[in-house]
Amino acid sequence: MADNATLILLRHGESEWNALNLFTGWVDVDLTDKGMAEAIRAGQLLSEQDRLPDVLYTSLLRRAITTANVALDKADRHWIPVHRDWRLNERHYGALQGLNKAETKAKYGDEQFMAWRRSYDTPPPAIEPGSEFSQDRDPRYAGISGGPLTECLKDVVERFVPYYTEVIVPDLLAGKTVLIAAHGNSLRALVKYLDGMSDDDVVGLNIPTGIPLRYDLDSDLRPTTPGGLYLDPDAAAAGAAAVAAQGAK
Amino acid sequence: MADNATLILLRHGESEWNALNLFTGWVDVDLTDKGMAEAIRAGQLLSEQDRLPDVLYTSLLRRAITTANVALDKADRHWIPVHRDWRLNERHYGALQGLNKAETKAKYGDEQFMAWRRSYDTPPPAIEPGSEFSQDRDPRYAGISGGPLTECLKDVVERFVPYYTEVIVPDLLAGKTVLIAAHGNSLRALVKYLDGMSDDDVVGLNIPTGIPLRYDLDSDLRPTTPGGLYLDPDAAAAGAAAVAAQGAK
Repeated sequence: MADNATLILLRHGESEWNALNLFTGWVDVDLTDKGMAEAIRAGQLLSEQDRLPDVLYTSLLRRAITTANVALDKADRHWIPVHRDWRLNERHYGALQGLNKAETKAKYGDEQFMAWRRSYDTPPPAIEPGSEFSQDRDPRYAGISGGPLTECLKDVVERFVPYYTEVIVPDLLAGKTVLIAAHGNSLRALVKYLDGMSDDDVVGLNIPTGIPLRYDLDSDLRPTTPGGLYLDPDAAAAGAAAVAAQGAK
Repeated sequence: MADNATLILLRHGESEWNALNLFTGWVDVDLTDKGMAEAIRAGQLLSEQDRLPDVLYTSLLRRAITTANVALDKADRHWIPVHRDWRLNERHYGALQGLNKAETKAKYGDEQFMAWRRSYDTPPPAIEPGSEFSQDRDPRYAGISGGPLTECLKDVVERFVPYYTEVIVPDLLAGKTVLIAAHGNSLRALVKYLDGMSDDDVVGLNIPTGIPLRYDLDSDLRPTTPGGLYLDPDAAAAGAAAVAAQGAK
């Protein structure tokens, strides 16, 4: 059932800070060996289905860029056009960037921890400009004056969805198969929009790393199957449970 | 002296078929481990000078794409915009694609071999459409009906120089530092144009793999130093000699 456009979402493979259980946000960490293996597996999954990506969109962060590079090379689609934009970046985690998730939870308590991690509209405290894990002097964000100092999921929706509708949708309307390589929270923001999820429902949504999530879209660009289809459903279910358990370590 | 634009040319690292001494052309072979190490070293060289790339142009071939991905990641510039185009591809080697260089030389004689390899306007015989090393059914060339069936260096000049002047020059005029990751013959075509070399002189030009070649350009986009400057001049001299010796194996 791919009469119209197809959109494939790919959350980057495990990063060094996923493995260390740290809040990452806009800190530009690398993939782990496991994350590289996930990217290769994602490429295999992409190559085994009937719609190969025609165009790639990525964030400006290495873990998404490398995941896409490795997966597309594996799927023999390394040569497709690429667009990168900060609006696909992970949620900026503010002053939590660089902190251990379990320690943060112990220090601030379960309620505050879950509010920062999963509430729709509660941003963490702003990061101090010039501090170790701030991006305010990073040249890639010079055009947006260094970028935000913290974000809640609502902020991510408000920066990513207009990019989707204005920049990505024209490719979908042209019949292209679009691959978006991005992050847990930027993809949650997009899925909320695609599936028409409420602010409350998106709180419970967990997207696993490294498993392509395919949305076939009708002529109005609505998903023909709500929630899309993971290219490896069993691995996706296990991965989503693992994401949900983060912070418990 | 970088008052105006800077152009950095990078020939991909050693490929599997460089190592096997085969004519490659548009066949999409991978880098060897040595080629990957060259790409990492190229990234180090890029990061050690004062002008980091603002934008990347690559061919549609994996060996150039991977070289650029690896080098830019090493130089912390993985996030810059990317443009890919077939006009940056290696010369199409026609019916020679997949043949061993030394065997071809032994079979056809020195004169014919050198005419195919190094004359300005003698293309090899056309490749047979549908044959093993033909690209006529490759989806990446669907827009140009499968692409050329053979090319001489003159053909490469005639496809690449207009792309340079029409697409890349506007970035240079905007003051951007442009990285071009491409191939021995496509870069020879561009250097011929940049340095105003004659059809005869370009025959003797050999560009080594994996060593960035920097051209600082004046306000008319003419090289301030003819021939440019390799970021590792000693390694470049050794590499150019090695390219010149190919076919002698």
